[in-house]
Amino acid sequence: MSAPFEAGTPERERLERLLAIPSISADPASGPAMAQARALLAEWLAAIGFERIEALDGGGHPALTAEWLHAPGRPTLLVYGHYDVQPPDPLALWESPPFVASERDGRLYARGASDDKGPVAAALFALERLMAETGGLPVNVKILLEGEEEVGSRTLGALLERHRERLSADACLSADGARWRADTPSVNVGTRGIAALDFTVRTAAKDLHSGRYGGIAPNAAQVAARLVASLHREDGSIAVAAFHDDVIAPDAAERAAADAFPLDAEGLMREAGGVPAGDARFAPVDRLWFRPTLEINGIFGGYSGPGSKTVIPAQAGAKITMRLAPGQDPARARDLVEAHLIRHCPPHATLAVHQEEGGVEATRLPLDHWLLAAVEESLADEYARPPVRLRIGATLPITALFARILGIETVMLSCSTADEDFHAPNEHIRLCGLAEGVALWRDVLQRLGRASSPR
Amino acid sequence: MSAPFEAGTPERERLERLLAIPSISADPASGPAMAQARALLAEWLAAIGFERIEALDGGGHPALTAEWLHAPGRPTLLVYGHYDVQPPDPLALWESPPFVASERDGRLYARGASDDKGPVAAALFALERLMAETGGLPVNVKILLEGEEEVGSRTLGALLERHRERLSADACLSADGARWRADTPSVNVGTRGIAALDFTVRTAAKDLHSGRYGGIAPNAAQVAARLVASLHREDGSIAVAAFHDDVIAPDAAERAAADAFPLDAEGLMREAGGVPAGDARFAPVDRLWFRPTLEINGIFGGYSGPGSKTVIPAQAGAKITMRLAPGQDPARARDLVEAHLIRHCPPHATLAVHQEEGGVEATRLPLDHWLLAAVEESLADEYARPPVRLRIGATLPITALFARILGIETVMLSCSTADEDFHAPNEHIRLCGLAEGVALWRDVLQRLGRASSPR
Repeated sequence: MSAPFEAGTPERERLERLLAIPSISADPASGPAMAQARALLAEWLAAIGFERIEALDGGGHPALTAEWLHAPGRPTLLVYGHYDVQPPDPLALWESPPFVASERDGRLYARGASDDKGPVAAALFALERLMAETGGLPVNVKILLEGEEEVGSRTLGALLERHRERLSADACLSADGARWRADTPSVNVGTRGIAALDFTVRTAAKDLHSGRYGGIAPNAAQVAARLVASLHREDGSIAVAAFHDDVIAPDAAERAAADAFPLDAEGLMREAGGVPAGDARFAPVDRLWFRPTLEINGIFGGYSGPGSKTVIPAQAGAKITMRLAPGQDPARARDLVEAHLIRHCPPHATLAVHQEEGGVEATRLPLDHWLLAAVEESLADEYARPPVRLRIGATLPITALFARILGIETVMLSCSTADEDFHAPNEHIRLCGLAEGVALWRDVLQRLGRASSPR
Repeated sequence: MSAPFEAGTPERERLERLLAIPSISADPASGPAMAQARALLAEWLAAIGFERIEALDGGGHPALTAEWLHAPGRPTLLVYGHYDVQPPDPLALWESPPFVASERDGRLYARGASDDKGPVAAALFALERLMAETGGLPVNVKILLEGEEEVGSRTLGALLERHRERLSADACLSADGARWRADTPSVNVGTRGIAALDFTVRTAAKDLHSGRYGGIAPNAAQVAARLVASLHREDGSIAVAAFHDDVIAPDAAERAAADAFPLDAEGLMREAGGVPAGDARFAPVDRLWFRPTLEINGIFGGYSGPGSKTVIPAQAGAKITMRLAPGQDPARARDLVEAHLIRHCPPHATLAVHQEEGGVEATRLPLDHWLLAAVEESLADEYARPPVRLRIGATLPITALFARILGIETVMLSCSTADEDFHAPNEHIRLCGLAEGVALWRDVLQRLGRASSPR
């Protein structure tokens, strides 16, 4: 049998057809391309033997769903991926056209190759081979291929609420979420949450002349800077009262995983052109995994053009996002920051705080979860060493949504790698990564079939 | 005899011809218009009886000069004004064309009517009448009509250095600088100086992902905000070490003038849509007249567009101008702020400070100056009450330049008023203000002729 996705195979041909479709969810004109991508995937799902293949509506681009539920007594796995892609801009920087798959040096180049059409194809091909070989699957499988991941899964929550029953499962295995490194097996066991807000302060109806008013007029840029400065202490810790009250400290297993993780903060920052900073009472890995952040994403006010302008700015502000630790509620985090800003705003300024609706909680995969165990065992077999357990400091909305709405944990088993330029020109995926992905998905599914039911 | 500048008089006709010339110094194509304005004024100066009428070159638009030095033993007065105007934009907001003088309700509308062609014409007309009536002038007069006042007098310093001898005088009487109010006689007895600098901090080579780096990466916007916040104390006072060391406190006469000045900070800020702020240890009038300011003109860094962006800004900064008190040197003020920024910049950020060259010192007219006395006496006679002595919190570069290069004091005797929309659409001047200007200039010149020589 040929290697998975080798040139000339039917699977490679199918993946290349999928990569040729510009299913750019952010593009308002992409409706027909999105439908075309769903049609191609639906055809493949039908060929594998999936049933109830349907587009589910959540208010935006539909998600494609399918199921195969003929393994009574076995767990039901929700297999997640997404068929939408990032816009290809800037086009001039692509070495080959973004919607024509092109193989170079063992890598397949195309928009979506790594994020997430390649990994989806690897998962589907693993299911297809199992079905062809045994006439069935080792576990019950529901497929969910989202169409809005690249626009922040903006309607996925509504879609899950509407189709909660249809999508119920025992756990989710995700074909999205890149591997940490190509050479080190790893598994994500948690994410931080996110909450956003911004504020503006106003000190006058319009900018004032610094000669005519300087000394008696308040300065909005100065007020905004003082408010921003007040949010952290000198040592880098967050100074917002009660902000850390709900933070859940790592348990013993999480502690052990963190202590075993070789985070090189100096090296990471050296590559980024800087040096590390942060609350020195905590180790860098703790600051990245278990501690919340309060980040100033932007600060603005007054004149920032060339030369100088003798103006007293009447308005200034800042944009803030927080990465939340396990236990923190996004709305409460925003409320605490808003209360801090109100308390610290001087009487000569008018403060307006805008909380961005929603937000996402941190997630924390129980380290004794049966699906995690299966994935770790398969990774250990494949790479002949135990995988690294890592948390990511970023946020994966789907993990939190699946936990909150469907009540299930998510384990990520992607065959893409963080260095494959997804979201950038010349996105690509290693062909060997695709092959490893097929093998891993097969192995995990077979392993789940051998285990006793987790329910 | 008709009232000065009444419609149909030769002086009105001459002023209207001057106002018709778009002598916009900021416009690179204004060369011919600038020459046309100089030619018209040269013709007028010749008609009055001035001699050595010449354009003086300082590297930019030339200044027009002339002299009449036939009053031996009498002081020599440098009469200053400028013939360039602001651009007329936005044109759509003008009720009559900016370069066609239009009389409405006792006011003459045109770009430059108030700043500074009208006041220049009033001064020249006063000189013309005196010359016509007596065949001479009560004092020696040198005329200096600048062509770059509206672009910051950028080459006036060089021009004064080059033509120092030619322009030497005992004092300067300026036809520029608006009156405080139409109904209250006043005289400016000082200005604050100015110095400018800006800084940026860099914490990484590029903006970083707040999920992947949040907790270990420094945030440039946060660093910039802390630096800005460090420049002032909680009470609004400037926290830069040694910043106030050279500040000269007001003397008894200045103190008396300040105490007599009816500054309504609450009212002023109410009109501006805010409430006063500042170092409460000093009265508002002191904060505006005698104390320096350190103003954040702009602060910038990271993302300020719609929505949120989970970025850790790699670069941020602020623009700063200081209004300087008497005694402060612009370069030293900048150096002190730079030293403060260096001292307060954390080790995880790279600071770059850019000092804007030059700067202007504060000025302080000796309150027993003979020209001030003459102007105050004339104002007291004209309005039947003593004029208010006021300082302005803003900066007048010419006053500092005349003091530094020519070694002379400047007294402002303008007949424009601060509310006449100079630098804005529908600039105008009160015709009664022009008439008052002619009378005052005549009176001051005659008074100087009667006084004993100040030299």
